[in-house]
Amino acid sequence: MMSALATARAIERGERTVRSVVEECLAAIDAGVDLGAWVTVDPAAVRQAADALDRDGAPGPFHGLPWGVKDIVETADLPTECGSALYAGRRTGRDAAVVAALREAGGLVLGKTVTTELAGLAPVATRNPHDPTRTPGGSSSGSAAAVAAGMVPAAIGTQTAGSIVRPAAFCGIAGFKPTKGSIPTAGVSMWAWTLDTIGVLAASVADAAFAAGVLAGRDWTVDENGLADGTAPRLGLLSVPWDDEVADATLAAIHEAAAGLPTTLIDVVAPTAVAGARQAQEVVMAYEGARALAHERRIDGGRLTPTIRRNLDAGAAITVEEYGLAMAAAAEAVTALPELFADVDVVVTASAPGTAPPHERGTGDPVCCRAWTLLGCPAVNVPGLSGPDRLPLGLQVVGPPGDDRRTLAAAAWVESQLSGS
Amino acid sequence: MMSALATARAIERGERTVRSVVEECLAAIDAGVDLGAWVTVDPAAVRQAADALDRDGAPGPFHGLPWGVKDIVETADLPTECGSALYAGRRTGRDAAVVAALREAGGLVLGKTVTTELAGLAPVATRNPHDPTRTPGGSSSGSAAAVAAGMVPAAIGTQTAGSIVRPAAFCGIAGFKPTKGSIPTAGVSMWAWTLDTIGVLAASVADAAFAAGVLAGRDWTVDENGLADGTAPRLGLLSVPWDDEVADATLAAIHEAAAGLPTTLIDVVAPTAVAGARQAQEVVMAYEGARALAHERRIDGGRLTPTIRRNLDAGAAITVEEYGLAMAAAAEAVTALPELFADVDVVVTASAPGTAPPHERGTGDPVCCRAWTLLGCPAVNVPGLSGPDRLPLGLQVVGPPGDDRRTLAAAAWVESQLSGS
Repeated sequence: MMSALATARAIERGERTVRSVVEECLAAIDAGVDLGAWVTVDPAAVRQAADALDRDGAPGPFHGLPWGVKDIVETADLPTECGSALYAGRRTGRDAAVVAALREAGGLVLGKTVTTELAGLAPVATRNPHDPTRTPGGSSSGSAAAVAAGMVPAAIGTQTAGSIVRPAAFCGIAGFKPTKGSIPTAGVSMWAWTLDTIGVLAASVADAAFAAGVLAGRDWTVDENGLADGTAPRLGLLSVPWDDEVADATLAAIHEAAAGLPTTLIDVVAPTAVAGARQAQEVVMAYEGARALAHERRIDGGRLTPTIRRNLDAGAAITVEEYGLAMAAAAEAVTALPELFADVDVVVTASAPGTAPPHERGTGDPVCCRAWTLLGCPAVNVPGLSGPDRLPLGLQVVGPPGDDRRTLAAAAWVESQLSGS
Repeated sequence: MMSALATARAIERGERTVRSVVEECLAAIDAGVDLGAWVTVDPAAVRQAADALDRDGAPGPFHGLPWGVKDIVETADLPTECGSALYAGRRTGRDAAVVAALREAGGLVLGKTVTTELAGLAPVATRNPHDPTRTPGGSSSGSAAAVAAGMVPAAIGTQTAGSIVRPAAFCGIAGFKPTKGSIPTAGVSMWAWTLDTIGVLAASVADAAFAAGVLAGRDWTVDENGLADGTAPRLGLLSVPWDDEVADATLAAIHEAAAGLPTTLIDVVAPTAVAGARQAQEVVMAYEGARALAHERRIDGGRLTPTIRRNLDAGAAITVEEYGLAMAAAAEAVTALPELFADVDVVVTASAPGTAPPHERGTGDPVCCRAWTLLGCPAVNVPGLSGPDRLPLGLQVVGPPGDDRRTLAAAAWVESQLSGS
């Protein structure tokens, strides 16, 4: 894999040209074409852009760093098809706000990565680089697969249920979903206004922290040395009701990893209200999806897949009263977050119920992420574990809203301990 | 003016055809072309659509009701230019979610109404129907002017500071900004993700309540008889620090109107935290605007007006720490809302500092609306008062988030008392 931090630094120091980085990316894309991670790459245009950046001096802090952009995110120069037959060939001629921020910081759009249809839960053609018979997860399927296959150092993802953390877990990379509202969603296809959050997929937690921080206009850089004051983070080992839906081997691997850390984790049981956020998220996502995608439902004409059609129709059947109860449950859960984090900086939990499922079974279950997306908590997939099938296994670090840097620092510390052991 | 409720009912009962309503609209648009309320109207297409609805039977609850759509809201069949040279002639080929909801309910898009540039605070060419030397307010300038001039029974507006309530006040019509999140913003140009709210401009409060409720999938219908149980609403007469910026004549007119109501208003002083939301809204709007419109800032090339360029640049200079403080102030203000509404259903306050300013002085000051937009409170401009210059004067009724129907019922009751006296 390519490190976003190291690559940006190497270009800054003149140790690498943007063009050489881009050539490495394009070669990896060619080599891994069977993975189906990309919707659109225009090599000639990318080479030209790279040469221009080398010639004129790429602005910082990305210094010409190539990015994959999930194909629900608008780009001025490439089509934005949203993984949907409804939008085949669509060009909006406009950059999403996050893409404009990326370019402003000297980033280069390498191409558009595969998204599931409208970023929903329908299956996707993209394969997992660790095992092509498996899914890379979704909905940021191509972004995760591309980073894991060394095709690009960083990629934009979005999460409405578990669409960043889950694919990162399945692909053995870092995935970071910041506090809700950190990165503007202007120019990004909406599924649920209460939930949709933009984040980053990258090789390591430090890479994701650097890259996401620039996009959010924050300094989120972290290293492996723990919190800002150099101390180890206070970690909670979380128990949640949906652990029942997580494979025993996954829980065992996380508990074993936790036991091996040079700190004592505190057992934390999710307050009832926080646990209730999981079910509430399902209602909010379904209700809002049918309303945000009202146009797509209207013009469908058989071009939505049966899975998405069914999901949207089910959402349309949810009443405003049911939605109101779910939103009230969310508000109650937010007030219980101080209790969850009373004695710890972050909590550690599963990122997904297991390793990547077989490709034909869909993109996996977002159950381990739903609550944190609804509550707007920063959440990181920490790579480094593996399951009994030797495929990557996810460990999720979750912090309180607004504590992105501390959450990332804790995650980077855990990551370094896992790789050191 | 045309009543949305009466018009939809007349079509439903077969007393009017959609075509006859549309002809009335088109004639009024022709007669008032100097007001500059519309960006795009396609009479031939509208007549064809009306005839099709008459032939096939227009679905309910709008039954063919014609709408004006603010030109930052995407429409599949008409350009969406956002009042900006950047988007001249742009066609996205897609309906915003609210337009899809409108069509689904049997509404007909009569045309696109003038917005200020990117829905910001730059001046606009549209004139006030009550006095063409005055502004209709903004940013939903064309929507307000068109309804006030009897060109259309209902129009979509959006509010980030005071862009629905203020133009409604200046034009002497009802304007309703629902609780934040009631109507999805998918397909609507973003200025500030924490603030942008879709609402409705219509002739009366009952018209706005009916029309907005359908778009939000809620039953918000109200009549002049007060709350659902037939009692008069408990009204608070609000004191806020920004009353200092409101003309004495405006405050006097509101206090006089309040004194004439057949109920005793309770004096309510805004809690300090709630009052602080005004300043916080300014920071949030400026900070988020620069980030949400990052693409427009990048591609500007002199096509943004100096006003908007200056506003966006000022927003870009706001630090993430300043923004964080403003968001914290907003959160604190939300926790103080129960205190504000402890003894009353709604509060009554000014909609704008005065009547519509001269056209050349811009679209007026949104100071009276900023806090309520940040706090997500439902807010209604109640028409019926006038200033010493005999121009319409705004009275704003504000309720707690989620209490849209009660807020509308209170506003409709006040409206009926004003018109009856």
